[in-house]
Amino acid sequence: MKKAKKKKKDKLWSGRFKTGTASSTEKFTESISFDRRLWSYDIQGSIAHAKMLARQKIISVADSRRIIRGLEEIHQEISNGSFRFDTTLEDIHMNIEKALTNKIGLVGGKLHTARSRNDQIALDLRLYLKDEIKRINSLIRKFQRSLISVSKKNINTFMPGYTHLQRAQPVSLAQHILAYVHMLQRDRDRLNDALKRTDVMPLGACAMAGTSLPIDRGYVAGLLGFKRISENSMDTVSDRDFIIEFLSSLSVLMMHISRMSEELILWSSEEFSFIEISDEFTTGSSIMPQKKNPDVAELIRGKTGRVYGNLINLLTVMKALPLTYNRDMQEDKTPLFDTVDTVSGSLEILTEMFPNIKFNKERMELTASGGFSTATEIADYLVKGGVPFRTAHETVGKMVSYCISKKCDLNDIPFNILKKFSPVFRKDVYKIMSVGSAVEMKRSPGGTSPGEITKQIQRLSKAIR
Amino acid sequence: MKKAKKKKKDKLWSGRFKTGTASSTEKFTESISFDRRLWSYDIQGSIAHAKMLARQKIISVADSRRIIRGLEEIHQEISNGSFRFDTTLEDIHMNIEKALTNKIGLVGGKLHTARSRNDQIALDLRLYLKDEIKRINSLIRKFQRSLISVSKKNINTFMPGYTHLQRAQPVSLAQHILAYVHMLQRDRDRLNDALKRTDVMPLGACAMAGTSLPIDRGYVAGLLGFKRISENSMDTVSDRDFIIEFLSSLSVLMMHISRMSEELILWSSEEFSFIEISDEFTTGSSIMPQKKNPDVAELIRGKTGRVYGNLINLLTVMKALPLTYNRDMQEDKTPLFDTVDTVSGSLEILTEMFPNIKFNKERMELTASGGFSTATEIADYLVKGGVPFRTAHETVGKMVSYCISKKCDLNDIPFNILKKFSPVFRKDVYKIMSVGSAVEMKRSPGGTSPGEITKQIQRLSKAIR
Amino acid sequence: MKKAKKKKKDKLWSGRFKTGTASSTEKFTESISFDRRLWSYDIQGSIAHAKMLARQKIISVADSRRIIRGLEEIHQEISNGSFRFDTTLEDIHMNIEKALTNKIGLVGGKLHTARSRNDQIALDLRLYLKDEIKRINSLIRKFQRSLISVSKKNINTFMPGYTHLQRAQPVSLAQHILAYVHMLQRDRDRLNDALKRTDVMPLGACAMAGTSLPIDRGYVAGLLGFKRISENSMDTVSDRDFIIEFLSSLSVLMMHISRMSEELILWSSEEFSFIEISDEFTTGSSIMPQKKNPDVAELIRGKTGRVYGNLINLLTVMKALPLTYNRDMQEDKTPLFDTVDTVSGSLEILTEMFPNIKFNKERMELTASGGFSTATEIADYLVKGGVPFRTAHETVGKMVSYCISKKCDLNDIPFNILKKFSPVFRKDVYKIMSVGSAVEMKRSPGGTSPGEITKQIQRLSKAIR
Amino acid sequence: MKKAKKKKKDKLWSGRFKTGTASSTEKFTESISFDRRLWSYDIQGSIAHAKMLARQKIISVADSRRIIRGLEEIHQEISNGSFRFDTTLEDIHMNIEKALTNKIGLVGGKLHTARSRNDQIALDLRLYLKDEIKRINSLIRKFQRSLISVSKKNINTFMPGYTHLQRAQPVSLAQHILAYVHMLQRDRDRLNDALKRTDVMPLGACAMAGTSLPIDRGYVAGLLGFKRISENSMDTVSDRDFIIEFLSSLSVLMMHISRMSEELILWSSEEFSFIEISDEFTTGSSIMPQKKNPDVAELIRGKTGRVYGNLINLLTVMKALPLTYNRDMQEDKTPLFDTVDTVSGSLEILTEMFPNIKFNKERMELTASGGFSTATEIADYLVKGGVPFRTAHETVGKMVSYCISKKCDLNDIPFNILKKFSPVFRKDVYKIMSVGSAVEMKRSPGGTSPGEITKQIQRLSKAIR
Repeated sequence: MKKAKKKKKDKLWSGRFKTGTASSTEKFTESISFDRRLWSYDIQGSIAHAKMLARQKIISVADSRRIIRGLEEIHQEISNGSFRFDTTLEDIHMNIEKALTNKIGLVGGKLHTARSRNDQIALDLRLYLKDEIKRINSLIRKFQRSLISVSKKNINTFMPGYTHLQRAQPVSLAQHILAYVHMLQRDRDRLNDALKRTDVMPLGACAMAGTSLPIDRGYVAGLLGFKRISENSMDTVSDRDFIIEFLSSLSVLMMHISRMSEELILWSSEEFSFIEISDEFTTGSSIMPQKKNPDVAELIRGKTGRVYGNLINLLTVMKALPLTYNRDMQEDKTPLFDTVDTVSGSLEILTEMFPNIKFNKERMELTASGGFSTATEIADYLVKGGVPFRTAHETVGKMVSYCISKKCDLNDIPFNILKKFSPVFRKDVYKIMSVGSAVEMKRSPGGTSPGEITKQIQRLSKAIR
Repeated sequence: MKKAKKKKKDKLWSGRFKTGTASSTEKFTESISFDRRLWSYDIQGSIAHAKMLARQKIISVADSRRIIRGLEEIHQEISNGSFRFDTTLEDIHMNIEKALTNKIGLVGGKLHTARSRNDQIALDLRLYLKDEIKRINSLIRKFQRSLISVSKKNINTFMPGYTHLQRAQPVSLAQHILAYVHMLQRDRDRLNDALKRTDVMPLGACAMAGTSLPIDRGYVAGLLGFKRISENSMDTVSDRDFIIEFLSSLSVLMMHISRMSEELILWSSEEFSFIEISDEFTTGSSIMPQKKNPDVAELIRGKTGRVYGNLINLLTVMKALPLTYNRDMQEDKTPLFDTVDTVSGSLEILTEMFPNIKFNKERMELTASGGFSTATEIADYLVKGGVPFRTAHETVGKMVSYCISKKCDLNDIPFNILKKFSPVFRKDVYKIMSVGSAVEMKRSPGGTSPGEITKQIQRLSKAIR
Repeated sequence: MKKAKKKKKDKLWSGRFKTGTASSTEKFTESISFDRRLWSYDIQGSIAHAKMLARQKIISVADSRRIIRGLEEIHQEISNGSFRFDTTLEDIHMNIEKALTNKIGLVGGKLHTARSRNDQIALDLRLYLKDEIKRINSLIRKFQRSLISVSKKNINTFMPGYTHLQRAQPVSLAQHILAYVHMLQRDRDRLNDALKRTDVMPLGACAMAGTSLPIDRGYVAGLLGFKRISENSMDTVSDRDFIIEFLSSLSVLMMHISRMSEELILWSSEEFSFIEISDEFTTGSSIMPQKKNPDVAELIRGKTGRVYGNLINLLTVMKALPLTYNRDMQEDKTPLFDTVDTVSGSLEILTEMFPNIKFNKERMELTASGGFSTATEIADYLVKGGVPFRTAHETVGKMVSYCISKKCDLNDIPFNILKKFSPVFRKDVYKIMSVGSAVEMKRSPGGTSPGEITKQIQRLSKAIR
Repeated sequence: MKKAKKKKKDKLWSGRFKTGTASSTEKFTESISFDRRLWSYDIQGSIAHAKMLARQKIISVADSRRIIRGLEEIHQEISNGSFRFDTTLEDIHMNIEKALTNKIGLVGGKLHTARSRNDQIALDLRLYLKDEIKRINSLIRKFQRSLISVSKKNINTFMPGYTHLQRAQPVSLAQHILAYVHMLQRDRDRLNDALKRTDVMPLGACAMAGTSLPIDRGYVAGLLGFKRISENSMDTVSDRDFIIEFLSSLSVLMMHISRMSEELILWSSEEFSFIEISDEFTTGSSIMPQKKNPDVAELIRGKTGRVYGNLINLLTVMKALPLTYNRDMQEDKTPLFDTVDTVSGSLEILTEMFPNIKFNKERMELTASGGFSTATEIADYLVKGGVPFRTAHETVGKMVSYCISKKCDLNDIPFNILKKFSPVFRKDVYKIMSVGSAVEMKRSPGGTSPGEITKQIQRLSKAIR
């Protein structure tokens, strides 16, 4: 990086400066390489601002029209790729304003009346994030629907439910998949709550004190579709809560799909052999020809770190910053954009991949019947016969020990032996020792029985509409 | 740590085990040293559960009554400090159940019918957190009121508003303090949103599949004051979202008060000399007799790291955990409790300290008038006279350069010189160059003028009621 | 928290204060509740300091002796539990100094000559951490020995090596376990490097500028066993690098044992069935009598979050703190102590548990032969016969596809079919298709063959001595 | 993202696959968009590998030559920008191997003999990181030299030393700047220690078990300039410690320069007015013409969050990953590259900016004399006269109180009053009450006296050579 002392350049703020900015400083401080992503929101906000300025007679209607026409042309140019972004112009705001002035002359300099980059960037970010929250929300919904659709086909697919990765009780595959639909629903709830706090119009806070010009903030909010305007000018330009809240919500979402990914990886292992992910969503090995790897799931699991890192990044940036705007806050964009891309990409590929998973139902059901997974059912059977739960638990524990030593399963215990464990046993106990029965009987609300699952699906289908 | 092979002890789950748990394992896995904090919620939940079991005829009314009476006695004992917690009994659930059985005999073993520690701990945590959210919410409200009360007295106290820690424009001290009231209000909003997702009754998910016993989950929810019941048994015992969301919300809150703390520290410095914190809330030096340190603010700023760390802790714990319950999740409690204590302590001491801060109003106002802080006003003056903003900005920039070279202030520029900078200037421009006028004129909604601040205070006072 | 305006109390720094500290401030700012853990180091440092003061004639030999005798008595009292710590005395330094003055009168006030709490706490922490690094280092070594001892018995135990949790190639169990010994060896290397930067004597930096009294810092360093003295007084009291480096190193260590824990959990599952952890190190279920859970491994995996959180905590605390000492830095202790305890406890229980794991060798070996795990061997066989690797890889890939469609294993392919895949095949190819052969042939340095493993064990045994 | 079922493509691992990879999968899993940065290291490693294969007669010398010539051509093409990277070829390894095969035909397929992408990427990363560690090390050294050079000119520039951001004692500006040189020296030490663990040759671990081909790993290590070879094939491909350690070290470095940045920001404020950063390294405001903002320092302070985030990212990725290679580990590159760029850019701009800071020496010295900053000197004066330190401290505390009430400075107290505070005072006490004297007398090793600073500079200049 060579230091290039330059002549005082035509920076839009250079009035009091004697020498120009070093090119190394320009390179280090520029944000145009990443904030250009906000260009359409920047123009949208400027157009609304120009309309308001004219309406309030702060600038003339003619000037406003020329400004708007100029902005629309720039919109066109950026859309079709003919616009040239310039690093020495720092950021998206300056790039567009400069292009405007080049196009329509000095009158372009009227656009920045009653505005500062401090409230302008807050506006751009909020417009952008409102859109992204809605888009991600709809990606989640699509994924939920995909999961529900797979669930519907698997209400009667049985598998072992695990605690501590030990087989605990048989469950329906649908119940397992629907657990994720619920998690995702909470993620959407959180996003919607975050949206409320994002949907606040900041323009008019100006540098941070408001302005003496007779602006109409409510009018701008209306034009841009905001629910309300911010209420304290200093808070307005200091606030990045809405981004942190978004990153928090998506950290939880990534945590959720990292759990799903972990399971897809486990289930793809030869040891579990519960699923086969179709060739289209797996990759092979450069050296081991037999391999078929669940790369997509692994990458999603890994990308969780990325989103957590982005969250801690911005929390660190904002820690102990005195009011109001500080340049540190420019560092909000990279973690935000990266999170949007990471989460979107992960949701899209999962939505596409999930229906291409083949469930090995026989293997799952067979596995569900192992590991003494109906033990709890037997304990409950005894409870229904009047045995205190702890005693019942102890009794079944001994039956399990017995089976381990005899290398048999619980329903292999002959009735006469059974009676020795507890006189409460009748022959009908063998019926409840099947996986199907164990699942079917869990009819408590939210339980894994087909009836309860069907109700769950109905409620969820309504909720995620 | 000595390995002590022990006889199979009377663990409540030891049916199938041949040798007892090593004492090192007991020590490593126990949670009673910290989860005892949940004792009253554990008992409250058990009583509701026992009532339901009787109502549903799963156990007899007489048994239920004996259980409840036993639990009430235990409540009494823990309250008055006569209860002895036992580490070998692992956790709060086992400690209480064992005490119950000791008290009322085998019938105590009926309490755990249609329940598992997996849904029981979820219940305890949710009951606890609902209370804590409400309590912290009210601590924030108290602090907000304290801030508003100070604001009311300082609507006409002027100070420099800063961007980049450079004096930017004069503002009202009230506006500055109210910025924090708004931040805190968002914190409360977030907590209230988190509360919605915490207020869900988990009991009845049992180990993770639900139960075949005819329980009434809605009845339990009603007894315990929950809005609704959880809808998927597997999700119910796997879910710690509600804790993470709480930790996220409080991370943002700590970020907010770390910013305030930073400012209190800056303002306490001899260089700023904006405030003096009363002796009661500062400490001295063990070696430098002249020192008076803003320790409370420094500690709060430091404790931000603690809460961020707790958030990343639990996010890490939950990453990639397969469903459903895993023992890793026991690690949710330490970061939760520590965050509750850290945030509560910080809010309490701030609420107490803030009214004991003496603002050096003269110094603040004097400072506000330095640093060419009315430059924006002059630019806006030119704009009102028809000059494009960018030209006005450039003009005032040159005036600032002029002043720096002449070592004078903007309002020291003689009128004949002023006219050379711009013919638009009239003599009335000197009026707007005062701090008071600059503040007074910022009448845009949310701006720093007394009128706008008064409206803000009215709205906020209503909102935080 | 009630505000109690108190009379100016006998704080050791209260000369210039008019009113005393509020009790809420005392409660919020005290550190004695956790820094008391440093008591023996504090006394050790004070004794060395007192010796030096006398040697340099800054205080008299008689005074020094009285001080040292007093400190030794306090040491005795704390050791036997008769000492009463007082929260109003803030921290461990003040508690001990006050007790000293109570014991020996005003002369106790001479101990703090040419010293400040700023360099004193740095000294205590460094003395403490040097001990802990050595202790943890030896805990790791013990664990490594335990792992090596298990490895020695399992050089010829074969198991599948995994990539992407897919069976890739057969390996020796010893090779797998030794991989962890190498990780732990790097952890020890890192700790030893951290030790170099911890082993620096800070006393004499005083408040932060040094002192005009004729102290001898080298003498104190010699008495306390430090390699060198710090070289810049301001850096000395501002520096917490040594703690962060320690937390970083242990974060990596926790990451390592979280990976081992994950594997122990996987291997304990019925699906893998590679190991059985003895009853002493597992726990049961309160509701499912058949369960035997790998809780210890789960908890260690979970506690990884704790140590990561502690690291991010202190990094956050130190971010952007101006020099020199700030009270925020008091927050270094909790994450430090918690990490020491978490890591120590995890290493101890792992060391105890590991030899109590039963490896199901038959199952492991059987599994190793599945999943076409010798495919690479066959590709290498073709390479040795002159086939370009990529062609060989493609050929074996087709053989795998063939086997999948025929539901057979690679060594089930008849020779005539084999020849169709590649004319290079000779009958001796069947020999390399066994797990044993595949492992035995990996004789490249660091490879999984018994010979290489034996060399590894020899090298490691020497290195970890 | 449209799903495009494609024909089985010419992936280098596609032997066993029936359908091709979905384009969405390709897009989601590709790494070529970022790992292309490793291209030169990938080619360098391949050339060494090809040489070894020929030397060991695993491939012919002629084949090896053709491969090497092909690789050199590719090197040329990438250098001059004519190479086309292809996303469907996943990563840098496949892009280069495919180009090689296109160039020299099937014989290109021999290069991947006795190698896997698992050990290849480990090699690329280690080669890359070794270079980056050295480069960053030399950037730090350059910055240290710049700081030392400024220090040399400011040994006799006095300023207030701060604790708790309160003026504590006068120090030399050189002492303050040198504190950072020491921090940076520790950063370099840590990087050098990390280098030892990076400088390990992984190639030959192959997929993770080693190989049966007669490779010579030591020869490859020699060609590539590695100190030693890795010792356990499974550990080799599972290990990312070296990256985490690098990220940890640079997190501490960023913490250090965030502290410096905080101070530059504080010192640039009108309130401190200690420094003026030259126009070239500051920027202006789009709305407030008088502003001159320390953006570079603010951005560096902000970028600390980025590096912390990268660290937590990779720690999260690696948590609980079972051995050996998992695709999650592909996520190591983005945080690594981003950290390298962030730290390099920050160091470069600081090195360039620091000599362009103008220190307002008069203001600094004037400030140093305020705030009773020589109070400790007076206490030490009393100590030298035989007063116990605590009593001396109390006495000076009272003198400070007196001065505050009289609004005077310590050296304004008339001698007769002075004697009332302590009979030990003689007239020579006034001499030590000057800033110059206070600094000059701190002659303890590492203290702020000119003599000690000169020694420090000598030692440091030697150490950083």
